[in-house]
Amino acid sequence: METMEALYTRRSVRKFQNKSVPMELIEEAVKAAMFAPSARNQQPWEFIIVDKQELMDAVPTYSPHAQMAKGAPAGVLICYNKEYDVAEGFFPQDLGAATQNLLLALHENGLGAVWTGVYPREDRMKGFVNAFNLPENVIPYSFTIIGYPEKETDKVDRFKKERVHYNKW
Amino acid sequence: METMEALYTRRSVRKFQNKSVPMELIEEAVKAAMFAPSARNQQPWEFIIVDKQELMDAVPTYSPHAQMAKGAPAGVLICYNKEYDVAEGFFPQDLGAATQNLLLALHENGLGAVWTGVYPREDRMKGFVNAFNLPENVIPYSFTIIGYPEKETDKVDRFKKERVHYNKW
Repeated sequence: METMEALYTRRSVRKFQNKSVPMELIEEAVKAAMFAPSARNQQPWEFIIVDKQELMDAVPTYSPHAQMAKGAPAGVLICYNKEYDVAEGFFPQDLGAATQNLLLALHENGLGAVWTGVYPREDRMKGFVNAFNLPENVIPYSFTIIGYPEKETDKVDRFKKERVHYNKW
Repeated sequence: METMEALYTRRSVRKFQNKSVPMELIEEAVKAAMFAPSARNQQPWEFIIVDKQELMDAVPTYSPHAQMAKGAPAGVLICYNKEYDVAEGFFPQDLGAATQNLLLALHENGLGAVWTGVYPREDRMKGFVNAFNLPENVIPYSFTIIGYPEKETDKVDRFKKERVHYNKW
């Protein structure tokens, strides 16, 4: 679809069909995520693609706002690798842009997804570190749950004119 | 253009033609930014569209990595409004996604842009607060400099196979 349509129609999808997701579509979305801009082009990201059902089902036990993972076919854990950091303090922005690219690419390919927050919640971070055996320099940042949408999402208009200012506050 | 093409071909553009940018294209990109996801849908953003040349030219005096603003036709300052925060600690992610939507929409419309970092650098934040008279609850986050690209950007491949992991680290 056209880019503007993708930007305007992407929504969070929390209920999925009982149907697996082709690995190549997840990999394409991860590739798109890697094309995000980053501070000083540091690209401080790592990706864990999850398609083992037992791993998906366990996520809500340590990430309480990620109940949708139970029974969902797949997920992508985006992590921050401290080793690549050359612009201190900017990684949450870099990984935010990367997660958004991931969501847009999934949407483009007819998949539904919901971004669930991990960093900076210590309890959730600890859960992902343990579940995926992350080394000390790798910090879990966001977990996107993926599947084919159970139903079509409604369109919304999030435009708020009063949030746009011109040349001054 | 198609979404995947936009995701793969967007680059940071730092040199611009001496040509003004139609306000409706900047406004469309700001609208797209507001369609980004946010934690608990808090949408904690505000946008200042800048097209006064004296304001653009002054940016490098307080944001040293934003030299490209001098002589550039326009910019968008994305800010975090604390009043809308209902998911503490997640605003850098929300605004990262919003900034990425802004960049993609500009690219779609043939514009070039570069995201320059503001938050969490105290000196730069102070400069933007002063220049745009921001109230205490509004924190400057990113400043995107916008114009028609001086030349076509090269394509790059940022895909790194070794950053993709499957079901475990």
